[in-house]
Amino acid sequence: MQAALPTFADVADAAHRLQGVAHRTPVLTSRTADAMTGAALFFKAENLQRGGAFKFRGAYNAISALPEAVRARGVLAFSSGNHAQAIALASRLLGVPAVIVMPEDAPAVKVEATRGYGAEVVSYDRYSQDREALGREIAGARGLTLIPPYDHPEVIAGQGTLALELIDETGPLDMLVACLGGGGQLAGCALAAAERSPGIQIYGVEPEAGDDGRRSFHSGQIVRIPVPRTIADGAQTTYLGNLTFPVIRQRVTDIVTVSDAELVETMRFFAARMKLVVEPTGCLAAAAVLHGRVDVRGKRVGVVISGGNVDITAYARLVAPAA
Amino acid sequence: MQAALPTFADVADAAHRLQGVAHRTPVLTSRTADAMTGAALFFKAENLQRGGAFKFRGAYNAISALPEAVRARGVLAFSSGNHAQAIALASRLLGVPAVIVMPEDAPAVKVEATRGYGAEVVSYDRYSQDREALGREIAGARGLTLIPPYDHPEVIAGQGTLALELIDETGPLDMLVACLGGGGQLAGCALAAAERSPGIQIYGVEPEAGDDGRRSFHSGQIVRIPVPRTIADGAQTTYLGNLTFPVIRQRVTDIVTVSDAELVETMRFFAARMKLVVEPTGCLAAAAVLHGRVDVRGKRVGVVISGGNVDITAYARLVAPAA
Repeated sequence: MQAALPTFADVADAAHRLQGVAHRTPVLTSRTADAMTGAALFFKAENLQRGGAFKFRGAYNAISALPEAVRARGVLAFSSGNHAQAIALASRLLGVPAVIVMPEDAPAVKVEATRGYGAEVVSYDRYSQDREALGREIAGARGLTLIPPYDHPEVIAGQGTLALELIDETGPLDMLVACLGGGGQLAGCALAAAERSPGIQIYGVEPEAGDDGRRSFHSGQIVRIPVPRTIADGAQTTYLGNLTFPVIRQRVTDIVTVSDAELVETMRFFAARMKLVVEPTGCLAAAAVLHGRVDVRGKRVGVVISGGNVDITAYARLVAPAA
Repeated sequence: MQAALPTFADVADAAHRLQGVAHRTPVLTSRTADAMTGAALFFKAENLQRGGAFKFRGAYNAISALPEAVRARGVLAFSSGNHAQAIALASRLLGVPAVIVMPEDAPAVKVEATRGYGAEVVSYDRYSQDREALGREIAGARGLTLIPPYDHPEVIAGQGTLALELIDETGPLDMLVACLGGGGQLAGCALAAAERSPGIQIYGVEPEAGDDGRRSFHSGQIVRIPVPRTIADGAQTTYLGNLTFPVIRQRVTDIVTVSDAELVETMRFFAARMKLVVEPTGCLAAAAVLHGRVDVRGKRVGVVISGGNVDITAYARLVAPAA
C-alpha cells in the first residue's frame, strides 16, 4: 500500500505545528562566499536548530500529527544519527515514550545524548541482527508507532518548513540547493520552494561515493547501492524512499555530487569565515555551490546547512590543516 | 583636553549609521545552557558580525561620523587584531584610505586579511620601535585621522548598538554580561542597556591574568598592569580608557574574572552545543555565566559573544579534548 504523496498543504500544516517549538533558524550571508561564487547566497543555518539539525522539524511534526491515543502509546525509531536524537527530543517535548534502536557499538556520546532526552535505547548487534526486524518486533509487541527517518509524509512536510521560513525571509529565490540522503529534506524543501518561489531551480547534493539519488533521478527508478564510504554520515543512505523519490523527480532540477575532500574544505570555510560548526553532511549543499557543481553566478540562491552534530575530537581533526 | 563622555543619544545615532551596513546578528538560545544555569540566556552572536567581531560597529561608526573633508584624507589604526580588520573593512566600504600599523612579526594571515580589505599595512619592529609614536608620525605627515580601538566616543557608541539590538529583540532583561578589554564594548552596551532596560544589572568580564578593569572599578582610579598572559588576546589591554572608565564606573554593577581554562571549556561548549566558533576573548561573558561568576539564577540575561576570529589551527588544538 502506497501512502499519498505529501503536498504543500502538509508543509503549511507542519509550519503551524512547529510554530514556537522549532527554532526559526537565522539566514546568514557571507560577502566572501558571494565574492567566491558571483552569487547572492542565503544560508539557512539548521545547525542552530534544536537538537543540532533540521531533523527535529520532521520528527516533531510526525509525532504531533499522530492521533492522540496512538501517540500516547509511544514511538520507535532506528537510527544512530540525527533522526534518533530528534525523535528523542520531540518525544520528550510531547510527553510521549520513545524507544530508539541503536547498534551496540554506537558512539557512547550519542547513546548518552539520546538517553539524556529521556528515550529508552535498545541495542542490537549490527553484524548478527536485522535492526528493522527487531524494531518492528518491539513496536508490534508494545504498540509503538515507527517513525522512519525520511520516507514518511509528515517527516517530509516537517523538513519542508525550513525552505518556507527561508523564502519568507529572503523573498523569491532563483535557486535552492539542499542536502540529499534519503530525500526527506530535498523533497520537503522542493514542495515548499516550488509553491513560494514559482520557477525556482532546485538542486540536491549527494556525496560522490553515494550517488544513488543522482542515478535514480536520471534513470527514473530507485537505484540501490551498498553503504557508501563517506564522511557525510547523514547521507550514507542506500536508496531514496517511495515517497521522496516521486516528489524529487517531479520538482527537482538536478542532483549533483561532491567529494569528501570538498566537504572538509567547506567545513573549514564555515569555521574560518562564517564561524559555524557544521558537520560533514551539513556541508553538502554549500560544497556544491562553492566548488562550482551548480552554476549560481548572478543568482539569488538558498543554501541549506543541515546540521552541526559532529564529535568535537573528530571535528578538530578535520578542520585542522594538514601538518 | 577631555572629550565629552558618550551618551545614549550617540548610540542611537550609531544605530542609524549602521542600519543596513552592520549585520543585525542573531540572538541565540540554548536549553542546555539554560538548564546548566537556571536562567534564560540570550546570546548576542557578534562572531557572526561582518569582519567576525563586534569591532566593525565602532570602526564604521567612527569613520562615518568624521566630517567629509577629514574622512577623505584617510584613517589610521594600530592593531594586529579585530580592530585593525574592522577599520580596514569599514574604510573600504566608505571609500576611505586606511593605514594599519602592525608589528612586522604579526601572523601572515592577519596581514593578508587586512591587505585583502584594501588597507595599507605599515610594519614596525615591536622591540625597537614605539608604535604609537610611529602611528602619530605617519598620521601627522599624511593628514590621517587616528581611530583608537576603544577610547573614542563614536567607537564606544558603535559598540553599544549591539545591546540596543539585543534588548529590542528580547524585551527588558534583568542582566547583561559583556566582555571587557579596554572597555569599548562594556561602556557602549551599558549606555544602551541602561536606557532600554532601566534597572538592568550590567557585568563586565575580564581574564583573570588581566584584571586591571576590576581593580580600577573597585579602586576608583585607572590601574595599569603589564601585558597579561592570557589566551583572550582581545583583552590583553593594560588599562581602561579615559572615556570608557567613567561610563563603566557610573553604570556597571560589577566586574568579574574567568580563567583561561574556563575560556577553553566555554569554546568547547559553544562548538559542541551551540555549533558556533568563538574566539577565546569572545567567550569571556559566557564563561562567567556558565561558571557561576555572576548569579544568573531565575533571571533573563543577555550574554555577548564578541567575536570568532581565531586561527583555525589554534582553534582545532584548543577545542580538541586533551588526548
